[in-house]
Amino acid sequence: MAQRKVSVSEISSHNRDTDCWIVIDGQVWDITNFAPDHPGGPGIIYKYAGRDATQAYNEIHSLAIIKNNLPADALKGILDQSTITEEWSQPLPSETPNSKPASSSEKPPLESLINAHDFELAARNTATAKTWAFYSSAANDLITRDLNVRLFNKILFRPRVMRRVDKIDTRTSILGHPVSFPLMISPAAMARLIHPEGELALARASKSRHILQCISNNASYSASEIVSQDSVSNYPFFFQLYVNRERQKSEALLRKIHSHKNIRAIFVTTDAAAAGKREADERVKADESIKNPMMSSAAKNDKKGGGYGRLMGSFIDPNLNWTDIAWLRAQTKLPLVLKGIMSADDVKLALEHGLDGVVLSNHGGRNLDTSPPALLVLLEIHARFPEIIARHHPNSPAVKAGASRPFSIFVDGGVRRGTDVLKLVCLGAVAAGIGRPALFATGYGQEGVEALIDILKDEFEVAMRNIGVTRLDECGPEYVNTGAIDKLVVKGRGHPYAVAWAESRERESKL
Amino acid sequence: MAQRKVSVSEISSHNRDTDCWIVIDGQVWDITNFAPDHPGGPGIIYKYAGRDATQAYNEIHSLAIIKNNLPADALKGILDQSTITEEWSQPLPSETPNSKPASSSEKPPLESLINAHDFELAARNTATAKTWAFYSSAANDLITRDLNVRLFNKILFRPRVMRRVDKIDTRTSILGHPVSFPLMISPAAMARLIHPEGELALARASKSRHILQCISNNASYSASEIVSQDSVSNYPFFFQLYVNRERQKSEALLRKIHSHKNIRAIFVTTDAAAAGKREADERVKADESIKNPMMSSAAKNDKKGGGYGRLMGSFIDPNLNWTDIAWLRAQTKLPLVLKGIMSADDVKLALEHGLDGVVLSNHGGRNLDTSPPALLVLLEIHARFPEIIARHHPNSPAVKAGASRPFSIFVDGGVRRGTDVLKLVCLGAVAAGIGRPALFATGYGQEGVEALIDILKDEFEVAMRNIGVTRLDECGPEYVNTGAIDKLVVKGRGHPYAVAWAESRERESKL
Amino acid sequence: MAQRKVSVSEISSHNRDTDCWIVIDGQVWDITNFAPDHPGGPGIIYKYAGRDATQAYNEIHSLAIIKNNLPADALKGILDQSTITEEWSQPLPSETPNSKPASSSEKPPLESLINAHDFELAARNTATAKTWAFYSSAANDLITRDLNVRLFNKILFRPRVMRRVDKIDTRTSILGHPVSFPLMISPAAMARLIHPEGELALARASKSRHILQCISNNASYSASEIVSQDSVSNYPFFFQLYVNRERQKSEALLRKIHSHKNIRAIFVTTDAAAAGKREADERVKADESIKNPMMSSAAKNDKKGGGYGRLMGSFIDPNLNWTDIAWLRAQTKLPLVLKGIMSADDVKLALEHGLDGVVLSNHGGRNLDTSPPALLVLLEIHARFPEIIARHHPNSPAVKAGASRPFSIFVDGGVRRGTDVLKLVCLGAVAAGIGRPALFATGYGQEGVEALIDILKDEFEVAMRNIGVTRLDECGPEYVNTGAIDKLVVKGRGHPYAVAWAESRERESKL
Amino acid sequence: MAQRKVSVSEISSHNRDTDCWIVIDGQVWDITNFAPDHPGGPGIIYKYAGRDATQAYNEIHSLAIIKNNLPADALKGILDQSTITEEWSQPLPSETPNSKPASSSEKPPLESLINAHDFELAARNTATAKTWAFYSSAANDLITRDLNVRLFNKILFRPRVMRRVDKIDTRTSILGHPVSFPLMISPAAMARLIHPEGELALARASKSRHILQCISNNASYSASEIVSQDSVSNYPFFFQLYVNRERQKSEALLRKIHSHKNIRAIFVTTDAAAAGKREADERVKADESIKNPMMSSAAKNDKKGGGYGRLMGSFIDPNLNWTDIAWLRAQTKLPLVLKGIMSADDVKLALEHGLDGVVLSNHGGRNLDTSPPALLVLLEIHARFPEIIARHHPNSPAVKAGASRPFSIFVDGGVRRGTDVLKLVCLGAVAAGIGRPALFATGYGQEGVEALIDILKDEFEVAMRNIGVTRLDECGPEYVNTGAIDKLVVKGRGHPYAVAWAESRERESKL
Repeated sequence: MAQRKVSVSEISSHNRDTDCWIVIDGQVWDITNFAPDHPGGPGIIYKYAGRDATQAYNEIHSLAIIKNNLPADALKGILDQSTITEEWSQPLPSETPNSKPASSSEKPPLESLINAHDFELAARNTATAKTWAFYSSAANDLITRDLNVRLFNKILFRPRVMRRVDKIDTRTSILGHPVSFPLMISPAAMARLIHPEGELALARASKSRHILQCISNNASYSASEIVSQDSVSNYPFFFQLYVNRERQKSEALLRKIHSHKNIRAIFVTTDAAAAGKREADERVKADESIKNPMMSSAAKNDKKGGGYGRLMGSFIDPNLNWTDIAWLRAQTKLPLVLKGIMSADDVKLALEHGLDGVVLSNHGGRNLDTSPPALLVLLEIHARFPEIIARHHPNSPAVKAGASRPFSIFVDGGVRRGTDVLKLVCLGAVAAGIGRPALFATGYGQEGVEALIDILKDEFEVAMRNIGVTRLDECGPEYVNTGAIDKLVVKGRGHPYAVAWAESRERESKL
Repeated sequence: MAQRKVSVSEISSHNRDTDCWIVIDGQVWDITNFAPDHPGGPGIIYKYAGRDATQAYNEIHSLAIIKNNLPADALKGILDQSTITEEWSQPLPSETPNSKPASSSEKPPLESLINAHDFELAARNTATAKTWAFYSSAANDLITRDLNVRLFNKILFRPRVMRRVDKIDTRTSILGHPVSFPLMISPAAMARLIHPEGELALARASKSRHILQCISNNASYSASEIVSQDSVSNYPFFFQLYVNRERQKSEALLRKIHSHKNIRAIFVTTDAAAAGKREADERVKADESIKNPMMSSAAKNDKKGGGYGRLMGSFIDPNLNWTDIAWLRAQTKLPLVLKGIMSADDVKLALEHGLDGVVLSNHGGRNLDTSPPALLVLLEIHARFPEIIARHHPNSPAVKAGASRPFSIFVDGGVRRGTDVLKLVCLGAVAAGIGRPALFATGYGQEGVEALIDILKDEFEVAMRNIGVTRLDECGPEYVNTGAIDKLVVKGRGHPYAVAWAESRERESKL
Repeated sequence: MAQRKVSVSEISSHNRDTDCWIVIDGQVWDITNFAPDHPGGPGIIYKYAGRDATQAYNEIHSLAIIKNNLPADALKGILDQSTITEEWSQPLPSETPNSKPASSSEKPPLESLINAHDFELAARNTATAKTWAFYSSAANDLITRDLNVRLFNKILFRPRVMRRVDKIDTRTSILGHPVSFPLMISPAAMARLIHPEGELALARASKSRHILQCISNNASYSASEIVSQDSVSNYPFFFQLYVNRERQKSEALLRKIHSHKNIRAIFVTTDAAAAGKREADERVKADESIKNPMMSSAAKNDKKGGGYGRLMGSFIDPNLNWTDIAWLRAQTKLPLVLKGIMSADDVKLALEHGLDGVVLSNHGGRNLDTSPPALLVLLEIHARFPEIIARHHPNSPAVKAGASRPFSIFVDGGVRRGTDVLKLVCLGAVAAGIGRPALFATGYGQEGVEALIDILKDEFEVAMRNIGVTRLDECGPEYVNTGAIDKLVVKGRGHPYAVAWAESRERESKL
Repeated sequence: MAQRKVSVSEISSHNRDTDCWIVIDGQVWDITNFAPDHPGGPGIIYKYAGRDATQAYNEIHSLAIIKNNLPADALKGILDQSTITEEWSQPLPSETPNSKPASSSEKPPLESLINAHDFELAARNTATAKTWAFYSSAANDLITRDLNVRLFNKILFRPRVMRRVDKIDTRTSILGHPVSFPLMISPAAMARLIHPEGELALARASKSRHILQCISNNASYSASEIVSQDSVSNYPFFFQLYVNRERQKSEALLRKIHSHKNIRAIFVTTDAAAAGKREADERVKADESIKNPMMSSAAKNDKKGGGYGRLMGSFIDPNLNWTDIAWLRAQTKLPLVLKGIMSADDVKLALEHGLDGVVLSNHGGRNLDTSPPALLVLLEIHARFPEIIARHHPNSPAVKAGASRPFSIFVDGGVRRGTDVLKLVCLGAVAAGIGRPALFATGYGQEGVEALIDILKDEFEVAMRNIGVTRLDECGPEYVNTGAIDKLVVKGRGHPYAVAWAESRERESKL
């Protein structure tokens, strides 16, 4: 649009955060005012101050946003191609997307963060663009990712008052391991992107706060490194397994896991048959120097973009199925939990196949957009198979009486508050998992994760007292009002159209 | 409001995109900052930089928006009428609304577009104002157009895990023609407005990606030109027919169509009894030099505005009715599909009248605002006449057993993601149609359409794996949760008030 | 906050629309950028450019908005009281809030307006602040006013296709008077505020377009002046009556009305027992020189503000009740319609008391905020007393057969599109009323009102064809889907809590 | 991000409201434009103009907001540490967060305020940041606080017309004390923060307008000071009691209360078992010089922040339970009402335990986020235990006949309009309580509170007339339509999942 030709030397003079021009597709833009609003963080923009950012931007979704939102006067003209110098057009020497921001003093002080949102905000403002993109992104239009959070806010409590709640006990046990309160750190990949100690810090904080960590198959550190740290070597951990297309690799991995006596359960992920298109992740160039222990090769940028998530998932076996439970049981004597269950029917199957539990999860909305928030699956169990919780919850009378075996239901996705954890416990979950919040807190190392856990536990305690319960086994669905979301819950024999169709076909078959 | 008189020479000096004043109704506005946000694109504005845009603007809806949204200091004063020169007040020599933007380099590179939204954005930013208005506009307040998209996002999947999904087969056949996955390019008029190759490119991409194109009766190229291209001359196409008020013209057209052996079905549009008021289209001046093969005369601007849609629709017979099916059957031996069905009752009638299928469609919301999204009609079939799908879907056991004849239900309107296509397949559609997204992709020619199809197919495959199906005939309503929109679906005997009224009248008649 | 003292001479120099400072409460503000967004229109602000606007602003709600929204740098300092001159502090000579804007050329040309929204926008931009406030305001938080419009947009059509709709007939008769389509101009006060010809123009347009006007009791012209115009003296009108606290005044008025043989029905307003607090109206100073025929005294500003609505309502009898129907019948032989009915129970009472019809209306949301949109009352009739429509609609078989008497249901509030009118007709209304849209169109005189009616009729015709009906008596609730708002409709025996409470009390009484 | 070093002398020169730079965490920001939008008010920002605000800001939530929302060019650089002077780094002499703004002339004139929102806006703009934070804050994400208000707006009236409503009587009696209309000032702490006369003014306004005040246990003045004022010494008051962990302190307090014969009822708060995290309150530094009569020690800032709410709540006994009713009855002969009931079950228990009434309340959303708005609890009573209202409402036939004892249901939370009060009365509440609105009005002293009460009463009267009632005992649920929120109401035997679970367990126990 703008026709004035602008020389490279003029462009180069606007090379500061506070006066920042960049070239995209031959157009010269002043993005000083826009940069802070950049969804991928301003850092990636400032790197190109005074330079040509075309290549980098073409991989970024927000290019469209920039063109669409910038005022016309931000377009300073078109690049005078005749003035391009060799120096100017060279790639940036420092072009490594996971370089840390210059100064750690930019982060708000840890003590000023008083809820999980604060940690997310701090990460957004201080992590590298690629890290933020990888952590925060989810499949397609982010509908599921955001719905995960929103549904918790729509469930109301039904508090009871006039009860003795001075002394409360938030403790429970998870798969037999006592914890201070029902929180689990869900497996989430590559915590090192945000802090050099990554999963090491998560592990130490888990022990110091007495909660459980489920270590990601794709952690930046190997499980061995994590659980062998002196300070945690006698503390229990869980391990999340992606079953490898080459089964013998998974077998070898499990053997290695078994060599660590403090790894006490295997969580097999079932919801990653195909990696979702995490568009923000794809649009930010991958750092090709990053090598994940589980990646068959280094990260790389291909035709689809630079998504870490997609690259890391290539080894996962899409053929994992119920007959494989026998194979898994043959590989490990540890409790087995299936992670990523998204329907009450599969929960029932898991129980029937002898699993020790399930994690209701949609993978943070990262694989299939418009997949259901785990909360809805939990409610579907209540609506269709209440006996699964009534009879098999580890705290249920039947289990305590030895009349039935325990089956543990975990839930993750969207948990941001201690009140969310309490709602899940009231609805029969044994623990709530946090993924992204734990990663964001890792930006402050062990101390940050501890602070986040303390906050969530404090919120949990306040909420327990205010609904009138003192122990977890007093919790039940009578303390929550799910009326706002009940229309989203499949009931009875299943989805009405499916039932109608099935009945119609059955009638047909009789004709 | 502003009282300062501004001379024509001063106004003329602000004649650049980056410093752009225009005169509207005697007022002098600085619209430099506003232009990029102009709903009809900035191009139409820049043409009038430094000049009087009154006439052009009076035909544009966003005039009101400008007056309402511009800051007061953008109003520079009032035109000093005494300074008007003959030269200044002359119409622009280049005043042709479908002139292409100066440089194709403005478009983002094709490889940077990773979803259908990106293509829409690119079209909005680079197509001419009139093209954008014609493509994007819909009837009245755009309620139906936008609801079409929104409803898809409210349907959740009910994924099943632990299934073998490595090998999946997305293929199916549509009216007997094998396709790579269940996508159809819906008929949409005048693809040439955005690219010189228009429907020619769409046709070549359809073949190269092995999907089906239904050629618009109002295509910029004649169906003959389209299907006779060397590269596609042996590939099947469908043809969309608007029945002409002068039936012999339709008969002649069909004879011509029949001369092309690769046109294999006729889709008769039924939802265009009256052309809707597409306000954005009306407000942008028509290019009177444009001549559509099907227009009885050249485009023109009249009292109601310059809407292409209205002008092109004038020949369509509003008296087309069920008794005409016999006439249609006499004209063609090709499969006949009715397009634009908006009620389950009419689907039932179409089946009873021996049609081969229907396209549930509201014409992209272009004819009747607040007409129902096709998704709701599809759900109404499930709720009221499930046997239509259960017994007549081409993949149904009854059809496969030869016990009933196939009846194909197509759906278009609002499809933007492969997940949308999968939801429709789960609900019994044989294919999903895309209209606007295909036009927007045509902006990049054949390669652009191919890229869009590739993206949708990739999204479709990922979603299939993630809900746990490997073939289309495994799909069913048990994989979707429509709870969020079920209240919008008419059930049982029909709309409750209609039933109550009918019963009340019946009671009356017995008195 | 700002401490710099600013002199009167400096303030006075910023006295243009494009550079506009004003003083409020001793603070000096630059409101150049804000003025165009001023909810009451910028005109009222520009009058005070360079002056002290404290008094005027203290009566305007948007004062708070200004303080809250203006950027800090818009606060230029505090008024240097020592510099105030006598001249500067004098009231504006032209301080008459209903003065017309300087130039009528500011209005967009009539031919550029293509829907009712355009007329509203034109009025907002060009009417005086007081006129806009009086017309647009409604009670309290505007919930009902806005809900009136929104509910129409939530009703979807259920169009039928494949019907002969070339020839359609939009005509009907209202209380026996043939009209071109089912639209009525609802009584709305003081049309002269926006145009010198006010209701005179409305009347001429009604005749020329063959619809009906119900003349407001509080029209700026007397009913006699309106209906006696040469051009309309043989055309039927309706008259809206506010029953006066002094009944003999109403009797006298009716005698006068009866002297005009072309006034053919009396609409008695029942929903104005107490004038609502129309806050925007109260906050804008009343023009004390305005004298309405029906006001006992001139407009005045009092402790509660300057609301015309409240002042004009003071004579209305809050004791009007069902026993007064007999008195009304004694005063007039004309058909009697009750306007302002908001419950199905009162519709039933009106029928039982022998009235000729009702206007379901909440007075444009002007009297009681959160009163129900008339649409909901219409649906409540369907849900609870369907026989009222089935048996008494003038087009019903029973009435046509002479088996029951006709009872006409009118609806107003929120009608903005021909599609809205059609939805009402499908739900059994004999006509839709428009209030505010007609006033806004009056800004363009007779020609403007005609243009608005033409637009609505065109939209109505297009919609008729597109749902597949050719005559009004073919319309019925089977053409609309009210699923989105059905939860708001009271059904069966009445509101469930009321029923539960009544039953509970009944049980008590038996104890 | 920004690298330019900025000297202290340069920073110091930007020290005015209209040109305001501050230093946070070593970064130099121009916050001139942002300050007015500061959620905690601009005052707290302006104090630090030209200085280092790090410490103060680290306690304020909106720090994150600033960083996130400010444009990049607002970041002027980083503090040049070498230029720091001793003078510059000294704490502000005036650093007392509850200092009043310099000039009371900033407040809009009282007569310009015409609804409760206006009072809130005035308080937000003129109270100190800490006062605003303390008054306006609520637990966690403010979901309940905002839902309290929103639900009222979703309830529609079902007005009846044609009734004699000239003479209406808004009077009722509350616990036997006649009042002018059913409004109560709910107990809310520390009214002195906004006006030196605090609760003294509230008390005098209550008497002058003939409504009732329930004095907060944590009032800034002692109850004795409040009720002993000459002007109110013969007027009835209620007293709100937090039961102290040290019961003898509560006993002593009650003895003192009993010495005032005009204190006529005790409202025991039950919903404060644990103080919620009111984040805005925590983030604003506490004024450590403030001493509340009921605080065991002075306010102080600790690790969790500076929240007054949390500090003041430390003495409250979390073990208060139903067996304590006997102890309470032994301490006082005054009527006893439980405040903070949030479930219909507890209402039933309160009735069964012989209490005189309950206040349905969630403490303004301050203790447990996502606790239910009191309106929902009131509706739950209708849905599950309608006899509680039908038989025990003081106006019920059963009570009037002496057949049952009266039980008074109060409701607070979200009441902003006279229409809200009427809705509650229609649903069986004896009075509506206002908390925050009364505090905000206290900013104008006694006169302000009187003005607010007058406004609410006027709105109440207008609404009574417009729904067609003349006395409070004519009100009933037939006048309201709660369809929009009924899905949120628990019905029948209780929450469906709880019922399903209970049944399932019961089945288990029989196996």
